[in-house]
Amino acid sequence: MTQYNYIKDGTAIYERSFAIIRAEADLSRFSEAEADVAVRMIHAAGLVEAAPHFVFSPGFVAAARGALEAGAAIFCDAEMVARGVTAARLPANNDVLCLLRDPRTPEIAKEIGNTRSAAAIRLWLERMAGSVVAIGNAPTALFYLLELLRDGAPKPAAILGMPVGFVGAAESKDALAENSYGVPFAIVRGRLGGSAMTAAALNSLARPGV
Amino acid sequence: MTQYNYIKDGTAIYERSFAIIRAEADLSRFSEAEADVAVRMIHAAGLVEAAPHFVFSPGFVAAARGALEAGAAIFCDAEMVARGVTAARLPANNDVLCLLRDPRTPEIAKEIGNTRSAAAIRLWLERMAGSVVAIGNAPTALFYLLELLRDGAPKPAAILGMPVGFVGAAESKDALAENSYGVPFAIVRGRLGGSAMTAAALNSLARPGV
Repeated sequence: MTQYNYIKDGTAIYERSFAIIRAEADLSRFSEAEADVAVRMIHAAGLVEAAPHFVFSPGFVAAARGALEAGAAIFCDAEMVARGVTAARLPANNDVLCLLRDPRTPEIAKEIGNTRSAAAIRLWLERMAGSVVAIGNAPTALFYLLELLRDGAPKPAAILGMPVGFVGAAESKDALAENSYGVPFAIVRGRLGGSAMTAAALNSLARPGV
Repeated sequence: MTQYNYIKDGTAIYERSFAIIRAEADLSRFSEAEADVAVRMIHAAGLVEAAPHFVFSPGFVAAARGALEAGAAIFCDAEMVARGVTAARLPANNDVLCLLRDPRTPEIAKEIGNTRSAAAIRLWLERMAGSVVAIGNAPTALFYLLELLRDGAPKPAAILGMPVGFVGAAESKDALAENSYGVPFAIVRGRLGGSAMTAAALNSLARPGV
């Protein structure tokens, strides 16, 4: 009869995973705090090769952590990002919000001639000052956020710019890195990114350590 | 003033993305139906390089599609997988279930000495016959599923075995491919996989075409 040999203890699996990542990934360009975030992002993607594409702007980790500790809301462009945040890790029972399915979103999308992912950002504006913004899916959302910031929208405390894909993803993240309108940011250059990596970064920012 | 030039139409973005993937990825070992699923999985990951790791067992796509059309439930090991399924694509208003946060799960985990992800599978058993099982996160869940099948559990119609990560992920998928107890399966060999790729495969199986 087939016997399966595997580690069944969640904490042991995490610890072993993080040890493998630290052994294999080149994290030397990151601060200790950035490396902690990077390890979790690599873990979520199963991809050590993603590390060279991570960029953290100076002060990003401190800004995001400080905002979360002060009770900042987290705005996500996709339900999967929001769903990937572990509520128990949040330091201030922070709201984790995705307004993609808000009934007002389709109408706004028509009005602005953009995707629903972009349109939902209009519903963030009232609470966007000092918030943590996490874009893990739609390049259009990141581009539209930049347009709103350009036009004077309230500034988040930190932006996770990690949309994934083949059309606009790399360009939107380059645009954020080129001019983030003074907001500290983290990006994954190129095509990589996605909801799992973004949620993993949020989980790391929410509570330092494993 | 900064101008951002980007495609703002969701359908156009999808079409362009899929065209890029078909141009860059080697899909020649797949059937047409398998290639459609593969394209969506690559799209979700932003990673053409993932394609060589995809394995579809003979009849997998037809089995999964047939089950969904017949109203099969989809059981997911993680909330992010379930949340990534686009309800409007489902052919029979199928239930999409994740029982990780069911109040019975922690007690079962203690009882079986395994993770909560594995324990939740015990709550699938009553409806597991003919279902579509989607494991996109936890290798322990896939290993435990195999143990249950080995011991005579009801057989799903199809298994998506796509846990991600560094400890047990590759091994659990190899084990499924070696002996799936007669159930058609799809896997992503090695460390890659994850909730986004798994949900993308489900979305493709739920409705052929873009």
